[in-house]
Amino acid sequence: MSIGGAGEPLLHGGDLGAARRLFPGAPEPFIDLSTGINPNPYPLPRFSADLFARLPEPAAVTAVAAAAARAYGALSAAHVVPAPGTQILLPLVGGLVRPCRAAIVAPTYAEHARAAALAGHEVESVREIDACRGAGLVIVGNPNNPDGRLHARAALLGLAKDLRDRGGLLVVDEAFMDVGPQEASLAADVSCGNVIVLRSFGKFFGLAGIRLGFALAAPALAARLGAALGPWAVSSPALAVGAKALADAVWRARTWRRLEKAAKRLDTILGNGGLDIVGGTSLFRLARTLEAGALFRHLGRAGILVRAFSDHPSWLRFGLPGNKREWQRLDDSLASFRDSRKSHRS
Amino acid sequence: MSIGGAGEPLLHGGDLGAARRLFPGAPEPFIDLSTGINPNPYPLPRFSADLFARLPEPAAVTAVAAAAARAYGALSAAHVVPAPGTQILLPLVGGLVRPCRAAIVAPTYAEHARAAALAGHEVESVREIDACRGAGLVIVGNPNNPDGRLHARAALLGLAKDLRDRGGLLVVDEAFMDVGPQEASLAADVSCGNVIVLRSFGKFFGLAGIRLGFALAAPALAARLGAALGPWAVSSPALAVGAKALADAVWRARTWRRLEKAAKRLDTILGNGGLDIVGGTSLFRLARTLEAGALFRHLGRAGILVRAFSDHPSWLRFGLPGNKREWQRLDDSLASFRDSRKSHRS
Repeated sequence: MSIGGAGEPLLHGGDLGAARRLFPGAPEPFIDLSTGINPNPYPLPRFSADLFARLPEPAAVTAVAAAAARAYGALSAAHVVPAPGTQILLPLVGGLVRPCRAAIVAPTYAEHARAAALAGHEVESVREIDACRGAGLVIVGNPNNPDGRLHARAALLGLAKDLRDRGGLLVVDEAFMDVGPQEASLAADVSCGNVIVLRSFGKFFGLAGIRLGFALAAPALAARLGAALGPWAVSSPALAVGAKALADAVWRARTWRRLEKAAKRLDTILGNGGLDIVGGTSLFRLARTLEAGALFRHLGRAGILVRAFSDHPSWLRFGLPGNKREWQRLDDSLASFRDSRKSHRS
Repeated sequence: MSIGGAGEPLLHGGDLGAARRLFPGAPEPFIDLSTGINPNPYPLPRFSADLFARLPEPAAVTAVAAAAARAYGALSAAHVVPAPGTQILLPLVGGLVRPCRAAIVAPTYAEHARAAALAGHEVESVREIDACRGAGLVIVGNPNNPDGRLHARAALLGLAKDLRDRGGLLVVDEAFMDVGPQEASLAADVSCGNVIVLRSFGKFFGLAGIRLGFALAAPALAARLGAALGPWAVSSPALAVGAKALADAVWRARTWRRLEKAAKRLDTILGNGGLDIVGGTSLFRLARTLEAGALFRHLGRAGILVRAFSDHPSWLRFGLPGNKREWQRLDDSLASFRDSRKSHRS
């Protein structure tokens, strides 16, 4: 994707190196609002040196799987596959069914289409889950990124049943379900056998750099995914912080409320800036404006990176500012943009 | 594998949890000599909190790839695929060729056979690389684990040429080449197009818990492997320490000498204990004794875990003790075993 004519690809959020090349004069520190990662992470425990030195032990892998099962509502640790981020799971999950027509409910996270194609599937974007009925593999985000669209559990279970009758697989990307309505999660339903739920650790817990994610699946499918990853896929620091954080119900509940409050505040600021909120979750908001390209550049020059979409040029996605100073800089930059456009029009 | 009749599987080294279940009365701390990991790790840098919080940036991935290329002798960063450990690369590398007959030069690391089968190949163990001529995929350790066997670069290049003529692939596992003769490495030869070299970071640098490994390959193959791993396969802490450690030529040279000295000391101690050294590298020694089973149990009860081999019941593999106290405990335990056998025989 080329933004602002600078010819620089910004395929994913989080690339401040590319942002600095795009906006070389921008003030530092650059504020990264281009992802949906909680800017106030779970506090890191003290890691012992041994944790970095020794191979991860099987007991540590089982412990994080058990903690994930409890936190996400899966039936047991045998239904959980820990991985170094969910990203690496995408082609493996796609490889669980023979090459077929894969329907991806779009717009959504772009890596789903890339990974499904890599697994040999003929990828088709569909707008509604009702349009998926002929596919052998269906991938849907719930709640979806970037629009926050939510699918009811009953509708997804109906789709799964339909797929099951002809050997098809349903993949539900619940990367943002930590802040979604828990009753929409299919975490407890994966034992039906043809549903895979993907959960991300790094987004809600604000620790994307340690690389931890999970596939929830029926034990037989979980074993196949685990065999492909091998015995030491996840680093020991990730296993340790994952097991601790997932079991911390107090932090999770407090963070849920804090993020919800922050998202409302972000909506207000974006609304004041003249943007329409068209969707999102508590970890990011999707806004629409006909001046998205100009605003992306204005914010970039002010040292604020947001996420633009080449196939939806009027969209901008905003992550949450992490502290008072970042909130203020965003507010100021939106105000100065609004002022500049007023003078521009007058 | 069941050792000592305890019915406990010990498929891999490094599982102290299983060791403690096998030898519940053993003194602590348990000494883990069951792997080939340097017990004196590269000193960890101070990690910023940001490193755990943010997604790994593309620039950090390129930096570690460039450092690995320089350290290992690959032509450029485009020839290097960073991964969360080499283990996870095995099925991906096997998947680069269509299902065929895969020849694995045995005995070697057991995961190679499992991963090749997972990739759909018909796996065959061979004793010599000359016996590989009919295979479409050949996997060979150099230097090999557990016997330290070394293959000359010219012989492997000849095999690669033969494979290339019929679309086959040669995978050289150089996990222990950091302590091997550098002139035997195929790192600089991967641009021929059908050779993959696997390098492990965690063993030589003593940081197996962070999960970092590399595939060296021609840029087209490297891009295919990189696409399967996706953009954030390796954690930020691993990228940071990897880039620093691989560039530290002083530490690497000093460690090379220190490990060589330690391996000689281990040979002396094992020899005094009545064991024959049959192979190894500076990171582990392979010993033979008709009393391997009894010695494994004796050491285990003394809180020392070594590696046994179900298919070679007279072999034991010993990693390096990490400090004076560990050396002393190993020496003492071997002596008490020798004494117990003498009195047993008299």
